[in-house]
Amino acid sequence: MTERKNAWARMAGNCHFLRWVDTLLRGAAQVMFQDSAWCGLFFLLGIAWGAWAEGIPEVALGALVGLVVGTLAACILGAPGEDIRKGLHGYNGILVGCALPTFFGSTAVCWVLVVAGSFFSTVVMLAVSRFLRTWKVSAMTGPFVFTTWFILLASYNFAHFKITGLPHPSLPAQPSEAMAMLPDVEVLARAVLKGVSQVFLIGNEVTGLLFLVGLAGASLPASIFAWCGSAVAIATAAFLGADERAVAEGLYQFSAVLTAIGLGSAFYSPNWRVILYALLGTVFTVVAQGALNVALAPLGIPTLTFPFVIAAWLFLLPNIQFMPESHRTPSPSA
Amino acid sequence: MTERKNAWARMAGNCHFLRWVDTLLRGAAQVMFQDSAWCGLFFLLGIAWGAWAEGIPEVALGALVGLVVGTLAACILGAPGEDIRKGLHGYNGILVGCALPTFFGSTAVCWVLVVAGSFFSTVVMLAVSRFLRTWKVSAMTGPFVFTTWFILLASYNFAHFKITGLPHPSLPAQPSEAMAMLPDVEVLARAVLKGVSQVFLIGNEVTGLLFLVGLAGASLPASIFAWCGSAVAIATAAFLGADERAVAEGLYQFSAVLTAIGLGSAFYSPNWRVILYALLGTVFTVVAQGALNVALAPLGIPTLTFPFVIAAWLFLLPNIQFMPESHRTPSPSA
Amino acid sequence: MTERKNAWARMAGNCHFLRWVDTLLRGAAQVMFQDSAWCGLFFLLGIAWGAWAEGIPEVALGALVGLVVGTLAACILGAPGEDIRKGLHGYNGILVGCALPTFFGSTAVCWVLVVAGSFFSTVVMLAVSRFLRTWKVSAMTGPFVFTTWFILLASYNFAHFKITGLPHPSLPAQPSEAMAMLPDVEVLARAVLKGVSQVFLIGNEVTGLLFLVGLAGASLPASIFAWCGSAVAIATAAFLGADERAVAEGLYQFSAVLTAIGLGSAFYSPNWRVILYALLGTVFTVVAQGALNVALAPLGIPTLTFPFVIAAWLFLLPNIQFMPESHRTPSPSA
Repeated sequence: MTERKNAWARMAGNCHFLRWVDTLLRGAAQVMFQDSAWCGLFFLLGIAWGAWAEGIPEVALGALVGLVVGTLAACILGAPGEDIRKGLHGYNGILVGCALPTFFGSTAVCWVLVVAGSFFSTVVMLAVSRFLRTWKVSAMTGPFVFTTWFILLASYNFAHFKITGLPHPSLPAQPSEAMAMLPDVEVLARAVLKGVSQVFLIGNEVTGLLFLVGLAGASLPASIFAWCGSAVAIATAAFLGADERAVAEGLYQFSAVLTAIGLGSAFYSPNWRVILYALLGTVFTVVAQGALNVALAPLGIPTLTFPFVIAAWLFLLPNIQFMPESHRTPSPSA
Repeated sequence: MTERKNAWARMAGNCHFLRWVDTLLRGAAQVMFQDSAWCGLFFLLGIAWGAWAEGIPEVALGALVGLVVGTLAACILGAPGEDIRKGLHGYNGILVGCALPTFFGSTAVCWVLVVAGSFFSTVVMLAVSRFLRTWKVSAMTGPFVFTTWFILLASYNFAHFKITGLPHPSLPAQPSEAMAMLPDVEVLARAVLKGVSQVFLIGNEVTGLLFLVGLAGASLPASIFAWCGSAVAIATAAFLGADERAVAEGLYQFSAVLTAIGLGSAFYSPNWRVILYALLGTVFTVVAQGALNVALAPLGIPTLTFPFVIAAWLFLLPNIQFMPESHRTPSPSA
Repeated sequence: MTERKNAWARMAGNCHFLRWVDTLLRGAAQVMFQDSAWCGLFFLLGIAWGAWAEGIPEVALGALVGLVVGTLAACILGAPGEDIRKGLHGYNGILVGCALPTFFGSTAVCWVLVVAGSFFSTVVMLAVSRFLRTWKVSAMTGPFVFTTWFILLASYNFAHFKITGLPHPSLPAQPSEAMAMLPDVEVLARAVLKGVSQVFLIGNEVTGLLFLVGLAGASLPASIFAWCGSAVAIATAAFLGADERAVAEGLYQFSAVLTAIGLGSAFYSPNWRVILYALLGTVFTVVAQGALNVALAPLGIPTLTFPFVIAAWLFLLPNIQFMPESHRTPSPSA
């Protein structure tokens, strides 16, 4: 595989078009903190498979459009070239492109918003990155979340949006029935994989598997942390009494997956203390998922990956010294 | 006109009372980023006319009280003299003074709050300015918004407030009917002017015209950006399907007017790239207006100029280098 | 008393266990900004008495557990030793430990959350402190508030939480009847003391008295500001028309008590200008209490001490120069 990668690196170095493709693939991979075209390719394959299998091809198209527009926007706005090259201005756009066709019918307004929104997500990326630079903390998927929240909220206000997939606005009410602890091993295994795939808003086991393979190609620890993060999230959700169907669909896991990869392998190098810290962060992410579900219920919008964003910011801000920092570049610095 | 200004500057230089009047007029003008007593005079005239024409003289009185108290507060709290002199501690107070009598009946509690609120808006101005100094970004009308939100929210909690003009708290629901695109040119022309006047919470065409004339006296580009910002906001609102009556009243335009002036002429010097960037910011402001309408619906309070504040912060934080920065002083630095 | 203190300081210096006890007592005292074991002892006595008198012994147990776990977490996470020694990593934990058994039934999930939550409150303490270090402002009780809000919100989402003491989620509605101004001197005197005791979520006059005695032992001005803050809050609430029963229970006073101590004696040395500034902050805290009551009503969670936190941040951020800063160490610097 390393040989294949080197060949690709040579080709991308010689050809403008291939370098551009390489940048876009890295943009897809950066959603899970990987600076790897190979990993990004598997992510795009996973999205394509999931979109086809679930009957929502618009999500795959939206992903491509968002990825291209978000990256282009960074060039137009004069973002530092090395950040663009690492894919740091593509990962928010691709998520915006996945999200909008998931929640809206495929109208002209929707596609204008995919383009405008992924462009805007790069403005937010530059703004949030500059804001957080003071503390040397990355923007995470915050720009995607803020951009999409703005558009989803606005959809309730304007008549030309075709809302198809948003929860009905309602006041919080505690569910009476607890989860039956998912005793079925197959159901659990599927829920773990769907938790990984839901990072891109897709509930599909094969997609989850393709994501894990892509991750493993870039970083084996990242792939293991992704799988374990999803499993830990299921256990936490079961302990707290989450809705069984939501867990089976991966909705309590996807943010936890990102927290586990981020704290466990991307921002710190894995060792025992880091693993315990990442575990605490992953458990917190599930509580935050529940808290944000409730906080957003009256507004009728989903949390997206904000539970992860808030977990990452809270757990990285203390900048704990006794844990050796990873030698990898710690993501955006725009 | 320049001569008249110079004569005024000489007089204000020689007389303590006139210098104080000059400072207050600049405070009114700073709502739209102008450091100009002439412009402020037209703003006060516009407010007076609008308040009289709409039958709400309390708004004009509130504006005066807020302007004086906010500026006095800065002196008492020891804010830097040059900031006070530019009117940077008057513009939040005047807006608080316009807002409270718009939403509350003219009771004793209301007027105590006008005084206390405009004093407090200067504390918030100092706090937000110090917070944002790290990124060299101004407080915008954030202090006015935060102060007024606190008081409006509190009004639902205490029995001695006389609420007259607040929206009923409700869960978000998408309107079924779209706007009929306002085909009438006269209606559109009036909506553009009302959009400008609503910056001070007044829906009156003559007031809008007086504001544009005052702006033109201080900066012709600012006046043009104000008019165009309002027009672009109407077009965006029509495309997205906004409520026709709200557009006719100027409620989707006033924040966009501020964004257009701010990004187009106050914080950057106008050139083609700046114009496109300001256009993007103005369009975003309309989406943010819709989003914040929805986000605040359950609480029953209006957005005030927060769509502008968030647009300005997001679009100024990236501190994009390839646009030549204006040589004008970029507003507060308290 | 000073002699007794010196004897204690010698003993704590010689014995690891006593030093640990001393640190914990200081943690309790830091809720009201005191670096004093003596004061912390009275606080614990007050909590014990209140919990016993009100029939909620779980609150006293939770306080102890939270205090120990929060402080231990700081050791494990490698926080600076001098901060730990001053009790700066105990005060959020003790409040989390008081809060959760107040709002939840005493189930296994509740006690797991007391432990996990007070541990997590120290992570938030380190995060918020690092964030705010840029402006030399302390975290106040923000980490307690954020941690507890997350858990309270999550409780509506998961079936295994036993909610017992949370307000029902509802849209804001203005009360029609004003407060009858509490004409009874005894009722007022009790309300002042309960306002002090509610800082630890306990409504008990004797507890309030014990807190005031403990404060006086550490700093007489602090004790006076606490009592006056509670009295000013009652007057403000009466003027604005607050609910009489809530005032009698101390619910409009506890945040104001903290603001008064903080602005009046902890972050500034008392003089006439400081007293006026603290008065303004205390009055604002009551308005903020009302505003946050409304803002959180749709979510069914209480404000906790956030009105104080926001007042402290807004009034300390301007860093007003003409007031001589206290020579005392201005609290956390982690």
